[in-house]
Amino acid sequence: MNGVDAFPPLPASIAIREVGPRDGLQPEAAVPVATRVEMITALIAAGASIIEVAAFVSPKAVPAMAGAAEVVAALRRSAAVRRVALVPNVKGAELAAEAGIDALTLTVSASEAYSQRNVHMSVDESLAQAGAIRAAIGDGLPIDTVVSCAFGSPYEGDIAPAAVASLGRQALEGGSTSVTYADTTGMATPRRVRDLLGETGTDVGLHLHDTRGTALVNAYAALQAGVTRFDTAVGGLGGSPFAEGAGGNLATEDLVHLCDDLGVTTGFDLEALLAVSSQVAGVVGHPVPSRIAAAGPRWNP
Amino acid sequence: MNGVDAFPPLPASIAIREVGPRDGLQPEAAVPVATRVEMITALIAAGASIIEVAAFVSPKAVPAMAGAAEVVAALRRSAAVRRVALVPNVKGAELAAEAGIDALTLTVSASEAYSQRNVHMSVDESLAQAGAIRAAIGDGLPIDTVVSCAFGSPYEGDIAPAAVASLGRQALEGGSTSVTYADTTGMATPRRVRDLLGETGTDVGLHLHDTRGTALVNAYAALQAGVTRFDTAVGGLGGSPFAEGAGGNLATEDLVHLCDDLGVTTGFDLEALLAVSSQVAGVVGHPVPSRIAAAGPRWNP
Repeated sequence: MNGVDAFPPLPASIAIREVGPRDGLQPEAAVPVATRVEMITALIAAGASIIEVAAFVSPKAVPAMAGAAEVVAALRRSAAVRRVALVPNVKGAELAAEAGIDALTLTVSASEAYSQRNVHMSVDESLAQAGAIRAAIGDGLPIDTVVSCAFGSPYEGDIAPAAVASLGRQALEGGSTSVTYADTTGMATPRRVRDLLGETGTDVGLHLHDTRGTALVNAYAALQAGVTRFDTAVGGLGGSPFAEGAGGNLATEDLVHLCDDLGVTTGFDLEALLAVSSQVAGVVGHPVPSRIAAAGPRWNP
Repeated sequence: MNGVDAFPPLPASIAIREVGPRDGLQPEAAVPVATRVEMITALIAAGASIIEVAAFVSPKAVPAMAGAAEVVAALRRSAAVRRVALVPNVKGAELAAEAGIDALTLTVSASEAYSQRNVHMSVDESLAQAGAIRAAIGDGLPIDTVVSCAFGSPYEGDIAPAAVASLGRQALEGGSTSVTYADTTGMATPRRVRDLLGETGTDVGLHLHDTRGTALVNAYAALQAGVTRFDTAVGGLGGSPFAEGAGGNLATEDLVHLCDDLGVTTGFDLEALLAVSSQVAGVVGHPVPSRIAAAGPRWNP
């Protein structure tokens, strides 16, 4: 039984950044601020301790994210919860800081074509944002840079892991606190996860999408490698308005269900989370992609 | 990078038993014999070398499987392809043998309640079938016993891996050639796969269902443990008429896509397989569950 015993040990716990209220809702019809605040509050009650609550972007470009400052204002600051906002540039960061946010996420794309379509900036221009934000708002807020298309681009195809890892290093040198690698269009595979981690080390976040039904197996491969930071969205909501067929995020309940069974602590209560997921399906007006949400946990005695 | 380097090596190749024409079509509206023969022929052309082509069951109980003997008769015997039929009992085995089948599958359930509902026999009565078939038709045909509900039962919940493995051993002692463990209602997890393999050894087949979106991660865990025999269904078709919400099989294209990327040989040509999957969606009249079928492979240059 050599193979069975040879499984690498798993981390004792992981940190999940719940991105449903931002990445998850972004491609949906606009949801009122009060409803988004209710959703965020319910997710925190279910165990979310890091939660992307808003994007400080143009409401004209992304109507679903209108009212970001109001969302942040409605959420009590708490040492137990990190409220995160996506910002595309210095102006967004200034607005987020004024609103009282706890942390920022910035995106940089490993794909030049995706970068132009998503943020109308070159990769180098994107990379310069962290430094510009530091210059404008100081060092008070952690900045996580999310490297999109880190496992391939729908435009250019494969992108060398060494080149992706180099972008991450440049982000850290340029003022970012941490780096997350995103599988924006579901092109990751367990081998490619391992290949990238071989270049970046495992002190990274992973942001996985389920376009090809591989988000969970990729997360498992990353857990085995020792990664302890994951982005997920309740229900598996999400997708990119700038990459057709991007598919939803790894569902929070799918990762929690897996981790619960593996003995990896997530901080979430699965039953409470599934109740939120069910409410969120009502909010967006369609079933959520998560199979665990549809089928229920493996067995309830 | 200890974690990244510590991944267990994978098998060089696996044997896939394509069960789409039987397990996949069973819950669908009846498909004419000629169409099923076309589907089987196309799957063989795409690389299937072991294929469950029919079930010799009562057409009243399972209308979709009517015409089993005609299906087998229409398929040329070939040393390169093993044509397999599911049989519930001695009568089915006799009919399959007369039709010229190459191998049989029998089911035994790890769940007493599921056994009663599925085959109207106790687990012990089911276990006796292999011996009775041997007595009736001799030793000419391999018999694979599929142990259903091997990772839990929707009726009784968890079933101890040692008890499941004991059933498998009894099947081998009772006249079966090999054993496959089936996750009939999608209750397996990577930990439970590993736990069962710890009791059975890795010289087993696995038959995974995707009810909870875990079929691929379970297959990956089994590959890492050294399992080399998998059941899959083109498109991820399937489900059990006797277990509500059972969900489809692991999709052949999903496993082939994973294995291609991992360098594990399957014998299938993914592009040809995806073409068959697309045709099969037309045959059953609805989109197939496979996400690879919907999104396409990770990138086509």
